[in-house]
Amino acid sequence: MEKTHAEKIRRDRKSLPVKIIPLGGVEEIGRNMTVVEYGNDIVIIDAGIQFPEEETPGIDYIIPNTAYLEKNKDKIRGIVISHGHIDHIGAIPYFIEKLGMPTIYATKFAKAMILKRQDEFPHKPKIKIEEVSSENSVKLGQLKARFFDITHTIPDSIGIIIETPYGNIIYPGDFRIDLDLKGKPVNTEPYEKLGKENNLALLLESTNAETPGFSIPEAVVHRNIEKIITEAKGRVVSGMFSSLLERAVEIINISEKLGKKVVIDGYSMKAGIEIIKELGFYKPKRDVIIPAERINDYPPAKVVVICTGSQGEENAALMRIASKRHKHIKLQPGDTVILSSSVIPGNEKSIQNLKDNLARQGAKIIHYRVADVHASGHACQEDLKLMVKMIKPKYLIPVHGHYFMLKTNADVAESMGMPKENIVVPFNNGIIIEADGERIQMLKESVPANYVMVDGLGVGDVKEVVLRDRQMLSQDGIFVMITVIDSQTGKVRNSPDIISRGFIYLRESQELLRATRHLIRKTVEEATGKMHPINMDYVKENLKEKIGKFLFQKTRRRPMVLPVIIEV
Amino acid sequence: MEKTHAEKIRRDRKSLPVKIIPLGGVEEIGRNMTVVEYGNDIVIIDAGIQFPEEETPGIDYIIPNTAYLEKNKDKIRGIVISHGHIDHIGAIPYFIEKLGMPTIYATKFAKAMILKRQDEFPHKPKIKIEEVSSENSVKLGQLKARFFDITHTIPDSIGIIIETPYGNIIYPGDFRIDLDLKGKPVNTEPYEKLGKENNLALLLESTNAETPGFSIPEAVVHRNIEKIITEAKGRVVSGMFSSLLERAVEIINISEKLGKKVVIDGYSMKAGIEIIKELGFYKPKRDVIIPAERINDYPPAKVVVICTGSQGEENAALMRIASKRHKHIKLQPGDTVILSSSVIPGNEKSIQNLKDNLARQGAKIIHYRVADVHASGHACQEDLKLMVKMIKPKYLIPVHGHYFMLKTNADVAESMGMPKENIVVPFNNGIIIEADGERIQMLKESVPANYVMVDGLGVGDVKEVVLRDRQMLSQDGIFVMITVIDSQTGKVRNSPDIISRGFIYLRESQELLRATRHLIRKTVEEATGKMHPINMDYVKENLKEKIGKFLFQKTRRRPMVLPVIIEV
Repeated sequence: MEKTHAEKIRRDRKSLPVKIIPLGGVEEIGRNMTVVEYGNDIVIIDAGIQFPEEETPGIDYIIPNTAYLEKNKDKIRGIVISHGHIDHIGAIPYFIEKLGMPTIYATKFAKAMILKRQDEFPHKPKIKIEEVSSENSVKLGQLKARFFDITHTIPDSIGIIIETPYGNIIYPGDFRIDLDLKGKPVNTEPYEKLGKENNLALLLESTNAETPGFSIPEAVVHRNIEKIITEAKGRVVSGMFSSLLERAVEIINISEKLGKKVVIDGYSMKAGIEIIKELGFYKPKRDVIIPAERINDYPPAKVVVICTGSQGEENAALMRIASKRHKHIKLQPGDTVILSSSVIPGNEKSIQNLKDNLARQGAKIIHYRVADVHASGHACQEDLKLMVKMIKPKYLIPVHGHYFMLKTNADVAESMGMPKENIVVPFNNGIIIEADGERIQMLKESVPANYVMVDGLGVGDVKEVVLRDRQMLSQDGIFVMITVIDSQTGKVRNSPDIISRGFIYLRESQELLRATRHLIRKTVEEATGKMHPINMDYVKENLKEKIGKFLFQKTRRRPMVLPVIIEV
Repeated sequence: MEKTHAEKIRRDRKSLPVKIIPLGGVEEIGRNMTVVEYGNDIVIIDAGIQFPEEETPGIDYIIPNTAYLEKNKDKIRGIVISHGHIDHIGAIPYFIEKLGMPTIYATKFAKAMILKRQDEFPHKPKIKIEEVSSENSVKLGQLKARFFDITHTIPDSIGIIIETPYGNIIYPGDFRIDLDLKGKPVNTEPYEKLGKENNLALLLESTNAETPGFSIPEAVVHRNIEKIITEAKGRVVSGMFSSLLERAVEIINISEKLGKKVVIDGYSMKAGIEIIKELGFYKPKRDVIIPAERINDYPPAKVVVICTGSQGEENAALMRIASKRHKHIKLQPGDTVILSSSVIPGNEKSIQNLKDNLARQGAKIIHYRVADVHASGHACQEDLKLMVKMIKPKYLIPVHGHYFMLKTNADVAESMGMPKENIVVPFNNGIIIEADGERIQMLKESVPANYVMVDGLGVGDVKEVVLRDRQMLSQDGIFVMITVIDSQTGKVRNSPDIISRGFIYLRESQELLRATRHLIRKTVEEATGKMHPINMDYVKENLKEKIGKFLFQKTRRRPMVLPVIIEV
């Protein structure tokens, strides 16, 4: 008797579920990377970096751990990219060789961004990228990738569909629902069409899952900014993330319409606009964009500045303007500064500093708390609900965010009737989620997913101990004592040397230093006097403890105390 | 002809304006301290600390600079205190001796808080405190202080009135307008009565000047928390600032009413409640408050926990509960955690961590963004407007906040018709504001007001250079090289010693260390070989530069490189 098709699938399923493994992005904002695995085929979705945190001083970036992929590199059929932001593409240069240079699939714009980043690594081999769009599909072993257009904040963003034997795995990546001026959803046809397919699982971002309602319509933001630029009697300086390229283009268009010139400042903003122009996504009229050094050729009311630095980054354009360090752009009373961005957690203090300095120069400051001059590119609760409703997935996996955000995203889906058992909240990065047509579950085991830190040329070589030392050093500094002793007699030669930084102000602490030197000599000689031969480890350990205690007693500070003993 | 009274005052005024000098609190949140000076009399209002910032690693507190007061200590007639929070009283122990032990005037509760803090400084001489209330007044040279009751978050908060020849200087300190459940202002009689006097200047806090509307009525918060506690089927854990003593008392009352027991955890919360009980501000029924170790004697639905740690502080009670490190309190599914506090800028990441860990244990989390379970103790825009309207001051001086907050506070007053020239926004701490009956102005000169940092036993001894070193050390660590050379030949003896922390993981960097040792020896001997006598400064400078460059080239990191050369 011939097996029915359903029976055949059921057998396959039992032996071979689809695995979904988030390697990054489910315990943080950033470092987005997910593995889809079926049998002998692995597809990687996105490969982003995360910016360093307070607990990782001195680190440049944090990237996903790719140990599991390195071990299974023969299975890798490709890397598919949703859009060209750094938290989705930034990690590529650090691991692509180790994975055997798999092909990257990306849209035209994302490809340009990936290649631009690759320029910073001139010694690395050439990567392979193939252009994709919502019009085509890619066979990746037994899996297949298709794409659908998504609204985010950067051109050419796509959602990713991975076809599996049990249905589609849908990854919209970062998105918001496109809304008209009245807040009515528009351009939702691709999602509704997709909703008619057999959709196994939806990987849904959680960045704004805690925010009720829809995201603010970008159209409203554009209208408000247009009003500000129209009414401005002085210059308008619009500070924003360099990632908000679509909004930057809109501001250029508005300025052009109003007969104003535009200065673009900030390396990444300039570079982004260049790419947009080169690829033909946007063609500004001749002469609309002027270089910063020509800003004073035009009356203030005729100039709009688009620049980076809305997070108060020390050397970004807006901060240089605020602190009067900008070569060409000086604020004057009557100027308006639009902070067209939100506050990224951790940047509160530097943004406060930015606003204070701008206000001291008499500029009028308009920020997102007083007017809708910024809309997030990420889905809020109503966007999320609508997406779930349209895609109609069997299973939901919240991704992109800290655990509480993922959990809130799950709660939102549950509140609209999604069964609890069909939602899996990834407990940590590296967790293995298995799904088939009948059920979804999180396995007990994880693949390696701890932080891989990039610091200068080192990738992954900065270990916990190095970070712990940096943290300790930043608290009370370091105190190195160098003692030269006669190996025969154990007597200390000359006065011990002290090298200290970040502990006390040495110039005003001569007496403490003298007393410490005295104690060092005494402690060493007391120890060595009774010893033949001298046990150096004991002498050092004893010295470290005694001097550490002495310094604490005198200052209530605990510098890192390091004894060096040199025998001559 | 006899001079008219008006003429006499005018003459006095010309020769002798009142000076108002903010020594802290106008470029930050915290460190509140203001000087009022008239002729030979100085009155100090509040003396708070500020918590350290990212740019001040390892520092315990930042306090106001009292150099101006030390120089003028003969003029000081007293220190008047508005309420017992640390940002208003915390700096007292650090400078009171230097000012000649002036008398402190404080309410009963504030006095208890000041004395409690003084306990941490057992070697300091006994301070003089006199109790005051809205019922009495204090003569302070030609000035006089009176007081009025204020609503804040701690018992016995008062506003301060300094009578001067030109009218009253009014300092409400931290306040919010008391509102009933419907948000209608109540208990405003003291302000309205005060408004009938001749009020020269109002020093108005700006903490929440950017927030529109009234502050959320505390009554609403109490009602919401009562609802949560009533409906809870498991334990309710309420995490909050230890400064919110009035709310803590209310939660004990609610629990008592509902027949539930209360565990109070966290050192400062316990201490505050103890003081409240001792002073008789509140008398809980016997047996309502139980020790944490008895929590398991009661069914979960019968227990409420009030604890500190709502900001994710590493060792506070709530964080210990969240990370399963608490000895007695373990969360279980069905428990509810109320985060009855806002997010203090800078704490976003640790609060995220707190919420993630609580959520991972299955607790339901209710925070201020999803329900009104917290109300700020500080005036929002409508509170501020109402206060200005009732007090009717001639001049307005925004205080307490960063410059942009003060400026926003000024804008709010201007929007309600206050003339621009009657408002002075302090440009920086230490600025001297002069006022008389005719005008108010900010002088060009300032008194010293830079950061005074407390670090262990040191007050003001940590200078910029120490902080800069700590910051550098936290980025790329330190690299100390110790080379012993023969003073006769200039040859290097043995292999150079390297002491490094926070730079690289030494165990995995043996090759780099070997190459560096080799380069050190070579560099030193090349330099000393040609020199008689050896110029040690040159050798060291040369070594520092060469090794710094070499390490950067190999790692793209810039540790602090320190050469030590020992001649034998």
